This record gives sequence, C-alpha cells and structure tokens, in this order.
Amino acid sequence: MLNGGGFTVLSVDVMGGDKAPESPIHGVKLALKNDPSLRFILHGSEEAAELAAQEGLTEAKGVIFCHASDVVTGDEKPSYALRNGRKSSMWLAISSVSDGRAQAVVSGGNTGAYMAISRLLLKSLPGVDRPAIVSTFPTQYGACVMLDLGANIVCDADNLVQFAVIGDAFARATLKIPSPRVALLNVGSEEVKGSDVVKAAAHELREGKTGLNFIGYIEGDGIADGQADVIVTDGFTGNVAVKTTEGTGKICIRYTREAFGSGPIAMLLGLLAKPYLSRVFKRLDPRLYNGAMLAGLGGIAVKSHGGSDAVAFANALAVAASLARNDVNGNIIGLLRGQESR
Amino acid sequence: MLNGGGFTVLSVDVMGGDKAPESPIHGVKLALKNDPSLRFILHGSEEAAELAAQEGLTEAKGVIFCHASDVVTGDEKPSYALRNGRKSSMWLAISSVSDGRAQAVVSGGNTGAYMAISRLLLKSLPGVDRPAIVSTFPTQYGACVMLDLGANIVCDADNLVQFAVIGDAFARATLKIPSPRVALLNVGSEEVKGSDVVKAAAHELREGKTGLNFIGYIEGDGIADGQADVIVTDGFTGNVAVKTTEGTGKICIRYTREAFGSGPIAMLLGLLAKPYLSRVFKRLDPRLYNGAMLAGLGGIAVKSHGGSDAVAFANALAVAASLARNDVNGNIIGLLRGQESR
Repeated sequence: MLNGGGFTVLSVDVMGGDKAPESPIHGVKLALKNDPSLRFILHGSEEAAELAAQEGLTEAKGVIFCHASDVVTGDEKPSYALRNGRKSSMWLAISSVSDGRAQAVVSGGNTGAYMAISRLLLKSLPGVDRPAIVSTFPTQYGACVMLDLGANIVCDADNLVQFAVIGDAFARATLKIPSPRVALLNVGSEEVKGSDVVKAAAHELREGKTGLNFIGYIEGDGIADGQADVIVTDGFTGNVAVKTTEGTGKICIRYTREAFGSGPIAMLLGLLAKPYLSRVFKRLDPRLYNGAMLAGLGGIAVKSHGGSDAVAFANALAVAASLARNDVNGNIIGLLRGQESR
Repeated sequence: MLNGGGFTVLSVDVMGGDKAPESPIHGVKLALKNDPSLRFILHGSEEAAELAAQEGLTEAKGVIFCHASDVVTGDEKPSYALRNGRKSSMWLAISSVSDGRAQAVVSGGNTGAYMAISRLLLKSLPGVDRPAIVSTFPTQYGACVMLDLGANIVCDADNLVQFAVIGDAFARATLKIPSPRVALLNVGSEEVKGSDVVKAAAHELREGKTGLNFIGYIEGDGIADGQADVIVTDGFTGNVAVKTTEGTGKICIRYTREAFGSGPIAMLLGLLAKPYLSRVFKRLDPRLYNGAMLAGLGGIAVKSHGGSDAVAFANALAVAASLARNDVNGNIIGLLRGQESR
C-alpha cells in the first residue's frame, strides 16, 4: 500500500528524543495534515503504538506501526548501540530505508548511535570517508548550509575538505544555488589565523583540485550575515555554533515579550503589533530549521533535535521528504564523481 | 598630573582595529564624557594626534598623547610583532601599564600580537600557564562569563581546568557571585559526549582539587539560557560562539526593523512602539558587551572588538576602568593561591 501512487514514505523512530514518543507521534500527525502525500512506517514501543492509534494514525491514514522491543538511550555509547541495538526502534527505523521500504528515516535520538547504525546499514557513499551532519541555517538573505554539526568531534584537514565537497552538493540540491560560496569557519579572516588543521584545509581548498568556489575564512558573525552559502567546520564547533544561535534567537523572543509586557501601554501596542512581532518570531524560530541530514550515506537519514516538540519534528519530517523528492544523494554522488574526475 | 586625585588612568592603543584611529579616539571622548574620573594616555601616529587634538582631547582634559612611529597590522604574526613591534602603538600602550603609569590598557588591534606582547611585558600571574581571553556575555537572567575567546586555539585538559579557575575568579570579581556555577561547553550534556580533551577536563574538575562549583557540561543553547555562570571552552570554539551570538543578535534587530518597515500601519506601530523596541535592541546590542580581558597577566589588558565603533570602544574603556577599580587581578591571585593550598 505504502509504495504506490507517488507517495513519499518516511520511516520514523518515535522513541528518540527528550519528549518521545509524544513529540514524534504528534509531529507525524501534523506532517500528515500539512502534506497528505506522506506515508509513514513508525517504529516504537507498545505504549507508543497505543498513543499513535489514539491519535488516529492508523493504516487507513497511511501509517504502519512496527513494534520495537528496545530503545537506544541518550547516554548510550555508539559502540554499545551497534552491538546491542538490533531490536531498537532506531535500528529498525533505519533498516526500513536499507530494505527499500522507506525513502528516508527520521530520528530525534542519540546522534552518535544514529550515525553509527546508519553507517552500518546504509553504508557510506562512494568517495566519502566520514559522513557529516549538515543542515540549513538562517541568514539575513535567506539560508546557508553548515556542516559538520556534531558527527565528527575531532577532524583533520582532509575531513574538512570532504565536508566542503558534500556541503557544496547539498547546497546545490537544497538551496538551488549554481556555484555555492564555500567558506571555512575560523577565528579570523586573515590567512595566519586559526589552527593548523584549518590552515591546511584552506590550502587544499585554494590550491587543490576540488574545483569548489572557495572564498576563504568566515568568522562566526559572518554566518547570519550571509557571507557564504556553505560553512565548513568540525563537528564540535559546528554543534556549538548552531545551538548558540538557537539560544540567542530564544532570548531575542524573550526580550521582546518582556518589553511588550512591561505595562498597559506596552501591552496594548504589543497586541496591535502582534502580526509584525509574530513575523519576527517566526523567522527566529529554530523549530523551523529543525531537521539535519546525515550526509554522505547511501540512504537519507534525518536527525531531529533531541528537544523537538511536534512542530519541530514535523519540520524535520518535511525536510526528509524534500531531500527524498529532490534526490539529494544523486546530486552528491554526481558531484563527488565530477570532482574526482577533474 | 594623571595619577593624583582618585583618577583611573587608561592607556589606549588608538591605532588598533578596523576603524582606527577614528573609533578609538571618538570612544575616548565618549568615555570621558560618561566618566570624568578617567584619565588617558593615548598611543598613535601623528595623524591620530591631530585628530585627538581636533576632538579636544588635550592635556587640560586629562589626555596625554604619546607618538608611536609604528603600527601592528591585523595580519601580522605574533612572533613578528614580538621581534619588530617595539615602536608600535600597541607595544607602547602596554608598556604604560608595565611602567606603572596606567592602571589598564585597551586595544582593538591584532589579538595574537596583543596577547604575545602583553605576556612579555606584563608577565603571567603566578600559577597561570596560559592566559585566556574572558568576557561577560548576555543571558536571559543577566550575564555569564565565558573563556577562552580566542587566545588559545588548541587546548589540552589542563588548560581548560586552569581557565575554569581564572573564570571563577573573574566571575566573583565582576559579577559579584559568591560561588559561580562552572560548566564546560560541549556537544551534549551526557558524560560520554565530547572530545577526549573535554572529557579529561571534566574528570579533573569533578574529581580533582580545584574546589570549584563544577556543574558539568553545557550546550551552546544553555549559554543564553543562563544555565551556568562560567563557561569554559577552547579559544577556537569560544571565539566562534561569541561571534555567532553577535551575528544572530544583529539579524534579530534586522528582522524586527524589516517587519515594522513593511507598510504604513507597520511603520506607525513601529513609531509608537519605538521605546519598547529600543529596549529590546539595547539588550541585544553587542557593543554593550564589548571589552574582553586578557586574563591571567600581571596587569589589566582589555581587548576591544576589531570592528568596534566609538560606542563599543567606550564600553571597552569602561570595562577596563571597572576591572582596575575592582582589583580583579588581586581577586584572581587570591583564588589561585587559595585553590593551590586546598
């Protein structure tokens, strides 16, 4: 039933994340409402199956529930999950993609375990040594792409160069930019700045044969400023940058709410200005950027933020559907091949 | 003249930063207006001296100008500046502190050179291996302290532990917090997350004899959330986090301006709501957090952001004056001694 009629089939680990299974299940319900051409294979506990049924997520609605007797916890080591996680909702959700039953998998669970199991079941794409987590990111002009966001905590120069290639392909596929400006995140724009790893990667991107549109270094404040389309960094720095941005966006919203709650006149003006303030809040809402791809794998795996609510989870599902429909992996493979043959 | 009567004397490198000497000189003028108990020794070129004179910054106003024939440029290697920078405005500005003529120095110039020359002239405090750049940072409840913000691009676990001690002392001195909550910046809050360096530092802070109020790991979004008072990280990650926050704050302001400029009704409401919007913009304004300390040195050296305008530079001068008046180095020494004897 699920594969016919132009449907996009998503496999979902409903047990991953801080608010599981509630947020994933409510997220699936919301995504289905937003996009009736989606179909789902959910993986989770019996309690989760009951919740899904209560929420009307039944086969008649295009949702199949598969029982998983185990869960990968947030503090589990990836190596442990690899050895012992075969019956977990995460493992089974990923295997729905390696089996060909679903076109993409989404989980909000343990990132390290998700990457490790995905590498095992989906394999790396030809030419990719280290898959990376990549996501779009708001800028003043629209969006950019940043990677790695946490899969590779310590990176060497070759890793960064390969991330640049993957990020370039991802940006072409998702942002529809013909020649993305690729930059390395650094602590200064001058050539002498930064670690040896960053300097060596810059040298290779400038002098080597990647053929990318490498524009040099970018500093943290250049990201939101829209100075580059693809921002390349190690997984530690990228993860901190993304989460710091989220945190700052949240206090912007909080400061605004406080200012317009500071007295009767302020509250009246806040009420009148609500449509405009909502527009600002919406642009700052990190939930609408939720959904990062584990890029460089032979199947589409999307990571939802561990703290996601239903709106955020639904956004990650929409990202997964869009990546599947745009054949992002075909794009990445093509570009990696093209760059190899240069 | 400068040392009498309870004045605080600041030495300023007016040639450092992208908008030098204009921004530093206008910043000095603004700082003097805000705080008439300040006195200044300015170091710069003859053109800068002329500009200062034009702006009325004369001896009668408590400003002495010292001519420097050289400038440390932004892309100069620290080692080059150390060998060849003896006649630079930066070197001479720092020596005004090592000479005892000024209580603190402020520069917006090349950070690496500033740290290298400061280490040579001011020496490290007893017990400090690697001085770090530390600054306050806005949170939803007030402020926190973060370090290192760019002095030490690659750090080992011992460096991070020592930053924690310096940050603790800095927070006690500047935020007036009796037992600051110290946290390590990481990519997850679980024990298994992060690099080996971060894990080893966490082990030492938990099990060792620092006696700090160590609360564990914090993620990027926990900074603005106010989850810790002292946030410890390496100079690469800290620099990116600070600049990313600045960039996000700027697009918050831009989004708000765009929303309230989107039509006649929006503009009218924006005009009426201006006092409240200004309050939000002010809280987000990175210029008001400008002024980071090169902490762990035997004299107070404050770094102003390279892109500072006059308002931002004046804030860095106010930070330097406050650090001098609160004897922050006495606090750091005392705490390092106390922690050694534990």
